[in-house]
Amino acid sequence: MPKIGIADTTFARANMAEIAIKTIIENSEARIERYTVPGIKDLAVAAKKLIEEKQCEIVLALGMPGSKAIDKQCAHEASLGIMQVQLSTNKHVIEVFVHEDEALNEKELLEIIKDRTKKHALNALALLKGRNELQRFAGKGKRQGKTDVRPLRE
Amino acid sequence: MPKIGIADTTFARANMAEIAIKTIIENSEARIERYTVPGIKDLAVAAKKLIEEKQCEIVLALGMPGSKAIDKQCAHEASLGIMQVQLSTNKHVIEVFVHEDEALNEKELLEIIKDRTKKHALNALALLKGRNELQRFAGKGKRQGKTDVRPLRE
Amino acid sequence: MPKIGIADTTFARANMAEIAIKTIIENSEARIERYTVPGIKDLAVAAKKLIEEKQCEIVLALGMPGSKAIDKQCAHEASLGIMQVQLSTNKHVIEVFVHEDEALNEKELLEIIKDRTKKHALNALALLKGRNELQRFAGKGKRQGKTDVRPLRE
Amino acid sequence: MPKIGIADTTFARANMAEIAIKTIIENSEARIERYTVPGIKDLAVAAKKLIEEKQCEIVLALGMPGSKAIDKQCAHEASLGIMQVQLSTNKHVIEVFVHEDEALNEKELLEIIKDRTKKHALNALALLKGRNELQRFAGKGKRQGKTDVRPLRE
Amino acid sequence: MPKIGIADTTFARANMAEIAIKTIIENSEARIERYTVPGIKDLAVAAKKLIEEKQCEIVLALGMPGSKAIDKQCAHEASLGIMQVQLSTNKHVIEVFVHEDEALNEKELLEIIKDRTKKHALNALALLKGRNELQRFAGKGKRQGKTDVRPLRE
Repeated sequence: MPKIGIADTTFARANMAEIAIKTIIENSEARIERYTVPGIKDLAVAAKKLIEEKQCEIVLALGMPGSKAIDKQCAHEASLGIMQVQLSTNKHVIEVFVHEDEALNEKELLEIIKDRTKKHALNALALLKGRNELQRFAGKGKRQGKTDVRPLRE
Repeated sequence: MPKIGIADTTFARANMAEIAIKTIIENSEARIERYTVPGIKDLAVAAKKLIEEKQCEIVLALGMPGSKAIDKQCAHEASLGIMQVQLSTNKHVIEVFVHEDEALNEKELLEIIKDRTKKHALNALALLKGRNELQRFAGKGKRQGKTDVRPLRE
Repeated sequence: MPKIGIADTTFARANMAEIAIKTIIENSEARIERYTVPGIKDLAVAAKKLIEEKQCEIVLALGMPGSKAIDKQCAHEASLGIMQVQLSTNKHVIEVFVHEDEALNEKELLEIIKDRTKKHALNALALLKGRNELQRFAGKGKRQGKTDVRPLRE
Repeated sequence: MPKIGIADTTFARANMAEIAIKTIIENSEARIERYTVPGIKDLAVAAKKLIEEKQCEIVLALGMPGSKAIDKQCAHEASLGIMQVQLSTNKHVIEVFVHEDEALNEKELLEIIKDRTKKHALNALALLKGRNELQRFAGKGKRQGKTDVRPLRE
Repeated sequence: MPKIGIADTTFARANMAEIAIKTIIENSEARIERYTVPGIKDLAVAAKKLIEEKQCEIVLALGMPGSKAIDKQCAHEASLGIMQVQLSTNKHVIEVFVHEDEALNEKELLEIIKDRTKKHALNALALLKGRNELQRFAGKGKRQGKTDVRPLRE
């Protein structure tokens, strides 16, 4: 039974980990290891520790960057860290970031959070099955956090 | 017979991998390994796994970044990851990114996608033959996705 | 008894390390190692040395970036270095940066410095206890340097 | 006899490698290994392979970034890759990039290309002689691609 | 007797290394190794070679970035390289960059160069003595290149 890591933050304004855990439990037998850190820049090392010290096969890195310029820069640094974790472990770390300025109001923001977290939890389960599991959706304009867009028309 | 890796995404709005595969089959005996991931930031580790776990000699990393500022940043992070994969494996990973705002309409965008993917698949085949295979085109203003530009005139 | 590293700068306009040390002493039995460097770009290697040469389990990297464009870029470079230290040591390095332009006056700036340093010192102590110690605050909109924000409402 | 690597691209609009090779032959007995790749983002791994697989002591990385925002970002990524190659091999990789928007017309652009490539080929030869070979020019306002600027006056 | 490395450039418009060497000689018995490279992007590997091949305990990386956007990007890349050198060697590399647009005229620019280089040479000597040598200046608003700023008032 593979282990899925979930790294989340106290900075976020929604319990993204609960959404991810619910989705994983409903759709698989995977075991889950969780690691809660203060903010998004702490996620990368948490993900690496989940992989290297807790033997997770894949990790979901959940966070909510703020809306200011400095927050965007933090998100960029966090993303570069997550990239490096993947390349030093040869494991996927799926970044699930929801930016506070993505929605016009709280209700819409919560819907983005739920949709994106759920879909990426399913993506993680698919990637665990193998490198061709998502092939049938290749080029299909899949979106997380909003509805898919249609493929380009000839 | 060398192996070529192809990493592609479900986010893209066209099946770029099919174009690449068709070009490779029509122009070589190379074997192909494919890896489909959710988005462009997942391509780097997929490329690394294709090289290290599937013994690919070269990889095409296919993706379609969106048009928003955050998409540009994601593309930058994805590119830095792809750079790192090359430097840790000593193999080429040819990045074939088509930005959604490169064209004025869908038809033109599709043409860019086809042209760029096809030409870079041929570039990959050339690089497999050796470091001097592309020398006759050196400084010739080769472009992928649009027509070549002429070399500078004295 | 775990060891906590504290890296601070002569560039800062407040003795952030003293605030951190006071908080740690009042709330734990942890031993402390301190390393003072000129500026924020010197913090990363100091943090790495505290971990690798002084056996610190976690490090607080304390600094005050200036308000000009070049200062923002320095802070970005410093943050990327701190990220790399974490990934090469598998230890948390909590970045506690207060930007000189975060507040309207010196009094407010000092309050941000005190609040952020104190709360992140407590975060460090929590992380030392284990990866689930902060779980009860997950998604609770915790902020350092200002008051928390409430979680999103359904 | 040391070996100098030359990495160049098919994207460039001038045969920069020929200029570099001519300069090296006229000024030294050094042997040359050349590697032609599609674009500037492929230069870093080519440089690394020239050093590690072809035993080059130093590499010239020749390229011509375009003038659009995306081209600037590509050049940045290419530069970061070239930086990493140097740090993982302890060899110099001299970046010789000429941006398409550096000149007002093609004639001027060609002159920049020739001047910069020639001078950096000579810099490479100097660096091969030792770390003090360029010391007599230290702080002298040397420029490649245009005329030198004078040192600051007291 | 520890060895201090000094990496400088031919691009700079002042002989920064001479200022650093004079300061070191007047204030210590340290031995000095110098390495002159063309530009700031060549400094990182020079610093690494000074540490790894010449056994320097610390390095001063001296440079003068130009005032254009591309120069700022080069400085950023150079800084990231210098960061990486520190993290792969566990040694400090003190970056002493003076941007050509920091001053209104040449006289002022020269004064910044002298002040910053001198003070950072002294910082290097202090860091060689140990991680607590600079502690008495912690949070004191120390500046290099201009006069110190006072600490924040309660």
